Amino acid sequence: MTIPGYMMGSPTLPPAPLKPEEIEEIKKTLTLTDDDLRFLRMSLPIVEAHADEILDVWYGFVGSHPHLLYYFSRRDGTPNETYLARVRQRFKQWIIDTAQAEYDDAWLRYQFEIGRRHHRTGKNKTDGVDSVPHIHFRHLFALAIPVLHTLKPFLARGSHDTETVERIFQAWQKAVLFQLILWSYPYVKEGDY
Amino acid sequence: MTIPGYMMGSPTLPPAPLKPEEIEEIKKTLTLTDDDLRFLRMSLPIVEAHADEILDVWYGFVGSHPHLLYYFSRRDGTPNETYLARVRQRFKQWIIDTAQAEYDDAWLRYQFEIGRRHHRTGKNKTDGVDSVPHIHFRHLFALAIPVLHTLKPFLARGSHDTETVERIFQAWQKAVLFQLILWSYPYVKEGDY
Ligand code: HEM
Ligand code: HEM
Repeated sequence: MTIPGYMMGSPTLPPAPLKPEEIEEIKKTLTLTDDDLRFLRMSLPIVEAHADEILDVWYGFVGSHPHLLYYFSRRDGTPNETYLARVRQRFKQWIIDTAQAEYDDAWLRYQFEIGRRHHRTGKNKTDGVDSVPHIHFRHLFALAIPVLHTLKPFLARGSHDTETVERIFQAWQKAVLFQLILWSYPYVKEGDY
Repeated sequence: MTIPGYMMGSPTLPPAPLKPEEIEEIKKTLTLTDDDLRFLRMSLPIVEAHADEILDVWYGFVGSHPHLLYYFSRRDGTPNETYLARVRQRFKQWIIDTAQAEYDDAWLRYQFEIGRRHHRTGKNKTDGVDSVPHIHFRHLFALAIPVLHTLKPFLARGSHDTETVERIFQAWQKAVLFQLILWSYPYVKEGDY
């Protein structure tokens, strides 16, 4: 079953604007290693099984904050339920993609696409929706806190010991931050990134 | 004893480019509350007592990564020890300021100054040093991971129970992310922030 607007692996996506060695440097600063990828993959069965519950919490957070629900609303201020539902499908797939941790060139190209979708250059186009034109940079990284905080209890629901759950959580923190850094690309002034 | 180049509270700093209600919105997305400020202040005695040890670890991290030491180096590639030492003094004060959690207008104005200092618009000016012109955006948020990860064991050295240490650490995560969001301002395209 295809997910509308999900373009991971699409040959139509342009190449990443960063060279592989530049990507490796970011991972070094993040201390994102193959061990973290291992821990991420350990979380795949749990997050896949609980994806809808996790999304309920995240959507609840956005929905209860007018200044965030704003970005899913029409210009007349009414929340766009179609938009919320369509994005939710891709957000669900994103949980799986993040846990699968196959951070290859196809995945990388899609990160720059997701960045554009948050930004005025790509927002609303995927779902052809009437909504506000752009998600302000100021909220992007900020949302990582509630997203990760609400994910943590679900990670503990598997059969792993406390130390392993902590390592899995740290890996998720690095993976989310890594993606937000890549998603920031269209927001940053030319030459500053 | 004054810290060279430390400008917290200086009347010469321009006002913040965001309105107070915009700052409050960012804090809402971050879920940064007065409780977090309370937990940050709990950490003040510990981080102040261990500031030099903490800085040793952070400087060790930067120093052992050529792609990061680069930003403290002269254009001929040699690390600028004066620069490293001068910034270290202000980084030490930053630990205390973050823990004191007095996030008022003076503090806010200084965050936008720190942002400029990482950016081509202000880098090197404070210490009048010969170094590379700009710190690339891609590494800013990434460094939060090692900075916070290496801070955590020090937070546990006080007399607080495990749950309190965890709350203190979460507050530190929010405080660091909050500041990085503000420091990003000069990097982001006009109208996108
Ligand atoms: C931790 C930070 C964030 C994460 C992990 C995240 C995740 C995602 C994902 C996975 C998608 C779908 C990408 C795709 O099309 O495949 C998406 C799209 C979207 N996100 Fe975010 N997001 C974050 C921050 C934000 C913020 C702060 C807002 C503001 C409410 C926001 C609003 C949206 C909207 C409106 C879309 C649809 C964009 C479009 O294609 O028109 N996101 N996000
Ligand atoms: C978590 C991320 C970061 C934190 C918490 C942080 C913290 C600080 C602080 C507190 C200062 C002194 C500000 C002042 O003048 O009062 C500073 C300056 C500086 N930082 Fe960062 N920083 C971060 C990311 C980075 C990165 C990724 C680099 C790259 C190596 C870097 C390199 C520098 C340099 C070279 C200066 C001196 C800038 C100047 O005034 O010329 N920082 N940083």
